[in-house]
Amino acid sequence: MKKGLLMVYTGKGKGKTTAALGMIFRALGHGFKVCMIQFIKGAWRYGELISAKRFGELLDLHVLGKGFTWKSKDIEKDVQAAREAWRFAKESINSGKYQLVVLDELTYLMKYKMVDEDEIVGFLKSHPKDLHIVVTGRDAPESLVKIADLVTEMQEIKHHYHSGIKAQKGIEY
Amino acid sequence: MKKGLLMVYTGKGKGKTTAALGMIFRALGHGFKVCMIQFIKGAWRYGELISAKRFGELLDLHVLGKGFTWKSKDIEKDVQAAREAWRFAKESINSGKYQLVVLDELTYLMKYKMVDEDEIVGFLKSHPKDLHIVVTGRDAPESLVKIADLVTEMQEIKHHYHSGIKAQKGIEY
Repeated sequence: MKKGLLMVYTGKGKGKTTAALGMIFRALGHGFKVCMIQFIKGAWRYGELISAKRFGELLDLHVLGKGFTWKSKDIEKDVQAAREAWRFAKESINSGKYQLVVLDELTYLMKYKMVDEDEIVGFLKSHPKDLHIVVTGRDAPESLVKIADLVTEMQEIKHHYHSGIKAQKGIEY
Repeated sequence: MKKGLLMVYTGKGKGKTTAALGMIFRALGHGFKVCMIQFIKGAWRYGELISAKRFGELLDLHVLGKGFTWKSKDIEKDVQAAREAWRFAKESINSGKYQLVVLDELTYLMKYKMVDEDEIVGFLKSHPKDLHIVVTGRDAPESLVKIADLVTEMQEIKHHYHSGIKAQKGIEY
């Protein structure tokens, strides 16, 4: 590996986390050791947890967020969980154990000011050179886009939710 | 499964095939039987072939295109290969063996008029209801967008190729 890339999948469209999963799938094929950290705990993540087991030692998947939503009753606890998750992410990146680290929905921590944007972007800017990092989430801040090697924006052109079809097992979760 | 979805990942940005791979990863976790057909043979697909083996019977991966490029010396052979690949795709979809079929870079067959657009869109419109289909590739035609349940356009905001960094093993292939 010559240079560690910082890649960002952002935008309102579907496929950000899915693209990150695909990147993991590809990297695992090369025998890379991969760490995926999910900063927002969601209900739609069952399929990949099971798939992850097939790769045993190669893939560490951590769901660290406390299920932050707009309905949250205890923002302080959410913020604390987010900060602990970010600390864990930094340790994972610095551990030297991985060739790819995926920070899923990290942008939300910046958007809702749970962790300081400058702190996150500053850290990612100087990340170890022999490691690739993928960040996903809506509304990637300009400062992150500026330091990233690759930024793809997923735009929603058409979505079946709009036609009243519910989320489908094996497709969205 | 209630309704088979037709999903399209298009646009010029990175992450179309990668998102499809992520969807496969998720679906396999649920024990879905998956078929992925690659219509354009490329050199950057090594990682996923190896990963695919981990899922054994659950994932059938077919690389059917003849490596169609602008450099091709024998367009007629490319067209024939594309048509055979499309026939194979229809058989796979109609076989009843799969819950998810990924048609990777299918849009190119329409764009370069190797297979008739109406034929492809017509077939996909009436595909079996108990099966999800994912189509990837640039320039998805309007007629395909019209019948799809989900369309995401990947927009390239920033790409490291532009800064002179080469494609990276485990990330792009």
